[in-house]
Amino acid sequence: MTADHADLRGAALIEIEPDAYGVPGVVRVMMNRPDAFNALSEALLDELQHALAGIAQTDARVVVIAGAGRAFCAGHDLKEMRAEPSLAYYQQLFARCTKLMMTIQRLPQPVIARVQGIATAAGCQLVAMCDLAVAADTARFAVSGVNLGLFCATPSVPLSRNLSRKAALEMLLTGDFIDAAQAQQQGLVNRVVPADSLDAEVGRLASSICAKPIEAVSAGKGLFYRQLEMGIEAAYQLAGQTMACNMMDDSALEGVQAFIDKRAPDWKR
Amino acid sequence: MTADHADLRGAALIEIEPDAYGVPGVVRVMMNRPDAFNALSEALLDELQHALAGIAQTDARVVVIAGAGRAFCAGHDLKEMRAEPSLAYYQQLFARCTKLMMTIQRLPQPVIARVQGIATAAGCQLVAMCDLAVAADTARFAVSGVNLGLFCATPSVPLSRNLSRKAALEMLLTGDFIDAAQAQQQGLVNRVVPADSLDAEVGRLASSICAKPIEAVSAGKGLFYRQLEMGIEAAYQLAGQTMACNMMDDSALEGVQAFIDKRAPDWKR
Amino acid sequence: MTADHADLRGAALIEIEPDAYGVPGVVRVMMNRPDAFNALSEALLDELQHALAGIAQTDARVVVIAGAGRAFCAGHDLKEMRAEPSLAYYQQLFARCTKLMMTIQRLPQPVIARVQGIATAAGCQLVAMCDLAVAADTARFAVSGVNLGLFCATPSVPLSRNLSRKAALEMLLTGDFIDAAQAQQQGLVNRVVPADSLDAEVGRLASSICAKPIEAVSAGKGLFYRQLEMGIEAAYQLAGQTMACNMMDDSALEGVQAFIDKRAPDWKR
Repeated sequence: MTADHADLRGAALIEIEPDAYGVPGVVRVMMNRPDAFNALSEALLDELQHALAGIAQTDARVVVIAGAGRAFCAGHDLKEMRAEPSLAYYQQLFARCTKLMMTIQRLPQPVIARVQGIATAAGCQLVAMCDLAVAADTARFAVSGVNLGLFCATPSVPLSRNLSRKAALEMLLTGDFIDAAQAQQQGLVNRVVPADSLDAEVGRLASSICAKPIEAVSAGKGLFYRQLEMGIEAAYQLAGQTMACNMMDDSALEGVQAFIDKRAPDWKR
Repeated sequence: MTADHADLRGAALIEIEPDAYGVPGVVRVMMNRPDAFNALSEALLDELQHALAGIAQTDARVVVIAGAGRAFCAGHDLKEMRAEPSLAYYQQLFARCTKLMMTIQRLPQPVIARVQGIATAAGCQLVAMCDLAVAADTARFAVSGVNLGLFCATPSVPLSRNLSRKAALEMLLTGDFIDAAQAQQQGLVNRVVPADSLDAEVGRLASSICAKPIEAVSAGKGLFYRQLEMGIEAAYQLAGQTMACNMMDDSALEGVQAFIDKRAPDWKR
Repeated sequence: MTADHADLRGAALIEIEPDAYGVPGVVRVMMNRPDAFNALSEALLDELQHALAGIAQTDARVVVIAGAGRAFCAGHDLKEMRAEPSLAYYQQLFARCTKLMMTIQRLPQPVIARVQGIATAAGCQLVAMCDLAVAADTARFAVSGVNLGLFCATPSVPLSRNLSRKAALEMLLTGDFIDAAQAQQQGLVNRVVPADSLDAEVGRLASSICAKPIEAVSAGKGLFYRQLEMGIEAAYQLAGQTMACNMMDDSALEGVQAFIDKRAPDWKR
C-alpha cells in the first residue's frame, strides 16, 4: 500500500497517514489547517476530494477523517466566501462541497469521523455524512450558519437523515451547540470517549471493520445507502440480490464453512 | 404589527397574543376552549386556519401554539363528529384538519408547540406537526382514538415522522399515554421543563430564532421539509441552490462580514 | 378459533399456541428448533409462512412470535446454506425469507416479537420486521453475518428503518452485539423486562391491543406502513380516507358514542 499512498502525500493542507493506527488498511486523512480551525477552503476541499478519489483506488479498508489542532472543522472558509459575492460562485462552491460529501458516501471503504473538537456548519455536515463517527467528550456540534444569516441548508441534508426532525430543526434554527453526549443520544455520533482515549477507540472500531472481508464490507456499504432511498419491497429485492452475490464470494463461502467447522476462516489478504 | 394583528383579534375560540412573551415578533395563538379541553371543533379549526393564514402575511417571526386551561388539546370534538355520521362529512372534516396541519408546515415562520397538559389524538398530531415543541413536565401525550375504535390515522402521519416506527406503532395500537420525558427521548418534543418555567423556556427558544435574519429562517424552514422528501442527491441540489441564494441576501453578506470583522452584524429590522 | 387452529397444529418445527397467554385472540407461534438456536431452515421458513397465512384467515387478533430454548433465532441455517453453493439457490432462499418478512408486515394482526435470548442476522431481522417487540434483559442482538464475510443485506432493510443510520451501520459493519437496553434506546424493541416477567409483559401488551375493535387495528396497521412510504401530502390523503371509513364502522360509532355518554362501549365480539 505504501506505493499507492506515496502519490497521495505531500499535499499542503491535509496529511495522509497510512500508519496512524498501526492497523494495516486504516488510512487517516488529517485536515491540517489548525489555525483556521480546518475551515474548508476551496483548496482544502480539492485536496480532500483528490485524496478520497485516490484512496478509493487503493486496497485501504477503512478511512478516518480527522482534524489537526483544537477544532475538527469549522465549515466553509468565510473570508474566501465573502470575497467573491456572486450567485454563480456560491453555486459552484456548494456543488463542490456536495461532491465531496457524496464521494464519502460512495467510497467503497467505510469512513469514520474522528471528532476531537468543534464541528460546525459544513464541519458538522462532514460528521453527519461519514458512515460512522467517534467523538471525544470535548467535541461539540452546531449548524451555526443561521447566526450569520446563512441557514445551513446543505448540512441540513445529512443532519436530517441522522437526527429526528425536531432535534435537527432546533439545531438549524437556533445555531446552538450540542455536546458529545447529546450528539450520541441523537444519532450524530456512534461513540463518545474521553479525549485521551479517542484514537484508541477509533483504532478499535477501524480494526473490527478491517477484520471483515473487503467484498462484504464494500458491497454492504453500497447497498445500505441505496436501499435506504427505496420503498421496502424494492429495497428487499436489491438486498436479496446483493446478498446472494455476496454469498458466492470465496470469502463468504470460506467464512460460513469455517463457522460450521468451528475454526477461524482462512482468508487471503 | 399591531394593526395587522387587530384584524385577527376578536375571534371567539382563540386568542392572538402578540405580546405574550415580551419579544417583538413572537405571536402566540392560544386555543381557548378550556372547558372542552380545546377540542378542535370545526369552528376552532376554522379560526386557527384563519389566524395562521393571517399571520403568514405579517412580519411575525415565530408563532407559538398554546392551549388555555389544563389540557393542550384533546383532538377532534367528538360530540360534533358523532352528530353527523356520514362518510362525506368525515372526509371533509379530516381534509380540513389536514389543511390546517399542512399550513403549519408551510408557514414561513417557525411554529413552536407550548404543551402544558394532555395532547391527545389530533392534539398530539398538532404537537408532532409543529416545527418545535416545548413541554411542561406535566404534559402527557397519546393517540388514543383506538380506545374508541377509531385508529388515529391522520395523527400517525406526523407521529411516524417524529418517532421511531415501533414507538409510534405502540402508541397508536395501545392508545397509552407517554409522559413528557418519554416524548422528549422519542423525538416528539425538543425540551421539557418544570411547568412554572414553561413560558420562560418557550420565550428563550423563540427569542433565539427571532435574533436570526428572517430570510434565512424562512427559506431554511421551507427547504428543510422539501428536501426531506427527496433522495439525497436531489436534496443536495435543492439545498445548494437555496444556500447560494441565501448567501446573496444582504443580511447574510453582512452577517458573514461582521463575523470576519469580529463585530455584531448591523441588521435592519 | 380452536377448529381453525387445529389445522395449523402438528407442524414439526413450530408450535401454534392459541392459549399461551390466557387471552382470547392472542396466538403464539413458537419456533421450536432449540438445538439449532431456531435457525431458519427452509423447512422452518415454510412452516412459519404457512402458519402466518393460516392465522391471517382466522379471527386471531394478535400474533406473538417466540423461540424455544436459549436463543430467539440465529438467522439462516448455515449448514443448509453452505451445502448448495449456487447463485440461483441463494436468490430463491433470500426471496423466500423476504416473503415471510413481508407477510408479517402485511398481516392484518399486529405481530409482537418475544425475544428471550440472542437474535442474530435474519433473527434480528425478524425482530425488526415485527410491529412491536418485547425483550428480556437477557436478550442480545447482532447482524453478525459480516463476521463470516456475508454482509447482512436483507436484515439491513428493516434494521435501517428501525434504528438511526449510524447505529444500524455500526451493527452491520462490526457484527457486534447490542444488549436489550441499547436495543430499546435505539428503537429495535419497545420494552425490556426481567426475563421472568417476559411473558407477563407480552401478555399485557397483547391484551391491550385485543381490547380494541379489530377493524380499527387492522386498517390502522395497514395504513401505517403504506403512508410511511409516501410523501406527507399523499400520506395525509390516504390517512384521511382511511380514518373517514374507520369512523363509519359500527364499532367506532359506538365507541365514540360511549365516550360521550361516559360509559363502556358495547362492542360485539
